[in-house]
Amino acid sequence: MQAAHITATGGPDSIKVGTLPDPVAGPGEVLVRVTASALNPIDLYIRAGTVPMALPNPFIPGCDFAGTVEAAGPGVTDIKPGDRVWGSNQGLLGRQGTLAEKIAVKREWAYPSPPGVTDEALAATALVGITAHLALFRNAGLKAGEFIYIPGGTGGVGSMLVAMAIAAGAKVLCSVGNDEKARLAQSWGAETVVHRRDDIPARISAFTGGKGLDAWIETQREPDFMTMVPAMAPRGRMVLIAGRAAQPVFPVGPFYVKGLTLTGFAMFNATAQEQAACASDISRWLAEGKIRTPIAGRFPLSQAAEAHRFLEASTLGMAGQVVGKVVVNIG
Amino acid sequence: MQAAHITATGGPDSIKVGTLPDPVAGPGEVLVRVTASALNPIDLYIRAGTVPMALPNPFIPGCDFAGTVEAAGPGVTDIKPGDRVWGSNQGLLGRQGTLAEKIAVKREWAYPSPPGVTDEALAATALVGITAHLALFRNAGLKAGEFIYIPGGTGGVGSMLVAMAIAAGAKVLCSVGNDEKARLAQSWGAETVVHRRDDIPARISAFTGGKGLDAWIETQREPDFMTMVPAMAPRGRMVLIAGRAAQPVFPVGPFYVKGLTLTGFAMFNATAQEQAACASDISRWLAEGKIRTPIAGRFPLSQAAEAHRFLEASTLGMAGQVVGKVVVNIG
Repeated sequence: MQAAHITATGGPDSIKVGTLPDPVAGPGEVLVRVTASALNPIDLYIRAGTVPMALPNPFIPGCDFAGTVEAAGPGVTDIKPGDRVWGSNQGLLGRQGTLAEKIAVKREWAYPSPPGVTDEALAATALVGITAHLALFRNAGLKAGEFIYIPGGTGGVGSMLVAMAIAAGAKVLCSVGNDEKARLAQSWGAETVVHRRDDIPARISAFTGGKGLDAWIETQREPDFMTMVPAMAPRGRMVLIAGRAAQPVFPVGPFYVKGLTLTGFAMFNATAQEQAACASDISRWLAEGKIRTPIAGRFPLSQAAEAHRFLEASTLGMAGQVVGKVVVNIG
Repeated sequence: MQAAHITATGGPDSIKVGTLPDPVAGPGEVLVRVTASALNPIDLYIRAGTVPMALPNPFIPGCDFAGTVEAAGPGVTDIKPGDRVWGSNQGLLGRQGTLAEKIAVKREWAYPSPPGVTDEALAATALVGITAHLALFRNAGLKAGEFIYIPGGTGGVGSMLVAMAIAAGAKVLCSVGNDEKARLAQSWGAETVVHRRDDIPARISAFTGGKGLDAWIETQREPDFMTMVPAMAPRGRMVLIAGRAAQPVFPVGPFYVKGLTLTGFAMFNATAQEQAACASDISRWLAEGKIRTPIAGRFPLSQAAEAHRFLEASTLGMAGQVVGKVVVNIG
């Protein structure tokens, strides 16, 4: 089969596309013919070696996938060749990734694809959708009618957070980088503030009628606890999903007196069971049109290195000027 | 009735003891003849005005109480004169406190006293016991066999945390100030480290066999996240219950990647229902001898100011040289 792969961590050019042996579905696995994959920042960090992980050699990068089952391995009885499936979490923790024509996936990581939703949409939604769902519901316990603030509301995870919070009946305020993104987020049903221009604490206070935030999901790399802890309502929930190098100051007094909760997670440490619970909501919401995933760029498998270069430029170089996911269409 | 009271916040000398009108049990309340009360640091902060709260004037300080029901107010049918009760949470959020011969208490804040346990032990255990129970079980979700670290393990709340964690089947490491306190905590069943002498991260690593801590309850005023976040196991739970002025640096990366949880609370913001759930365990554990509360000093009601002065000196001035609670015996 054709697959993107690296033999050592490095820049985008370390990605080669060529022939690798077809994988075989082992016990409890399914063999999937992949039609769409999508990139996430974690793919860049693993490829570059900045997030060290045990990697097979050669290593196929990529977490997200959608496609069609080609064979079920021994012991797999509830899924059959021809079934459409989607998922994420490949290419992590020693597993091979998804930028390949075929992948062998543990049954528990493959979710039934809903009719009427394209493989491209499923692949583009996978990791960001599961991350957003875990943050909103497992970690923040978000309920209908609550006030939530989402910095970076048009980012990969951010746009999912906004869509899912609205789908859950919450009242959403998000921050964005410019007026164009503000109009986009408003079209999804969110209120917006613009970084570096608006007085965010004053806008949060007005948004919540002085009550404070029930939830805050920080998608960006420098959480500002001195601003956000005072902006929370009693028993508010704060969630961190980024910021590996950040070491901000933390105001202990207002945090504990208000009974706040701070949690964080890396999506790839969630169990298969936790992620499958998210996946069933995601499949339903995509089918109902309640969430949609903007696509910023499409590349064929042969241009996997170019796809990485495009995402890297947009994530690190262009300070988030691109809205939407980078998709790799395969086969 | 005789009662301690203040007419303005200030030093211990602002507490006078004299005659105030007897309270009356209103709808849903019980009138309790108090036999024992106990002091907590929050009493000092409210009296001094450093934790501002709306106060009646004159204000009777004191949170904890144990005694005997003298009358049940309208609508109270499940408790009767002569029943022994205990509780905490009076003298907070606008309520009158417990350094008085009689108090009117909402039924939901009065718990049945277990036979064979003295009123002094119940009063001394009330606020610290409920605080420790909330921290260990509601907030940290502590389970049998887990590893927990408790700085300040012979303090008021600290000694309760140690006793309850052991009662729950957890493995307990606590920090103490000197060898005498270490022997005391070891006699309760805890491992110990001594502040400013032992290498605490190395001791935590050895204690947990390299796994890291499942729970850390910080009772002291300067939490050190840079030391403690790396010492936690994946999905570990960190709880703050002190440190109003602390603003330490917070390492975001290891916190979120390990999926840690940080929560905090001020005990007086817990609901009556949450506290009653703690009280039933506390009554049972006291009756079974699984927890015990050291008494550092006993004062009659007429010496309420002296009791405050003693606790203030021990808490702030003597850097925790005194182990145990300060009890006020009444009537």
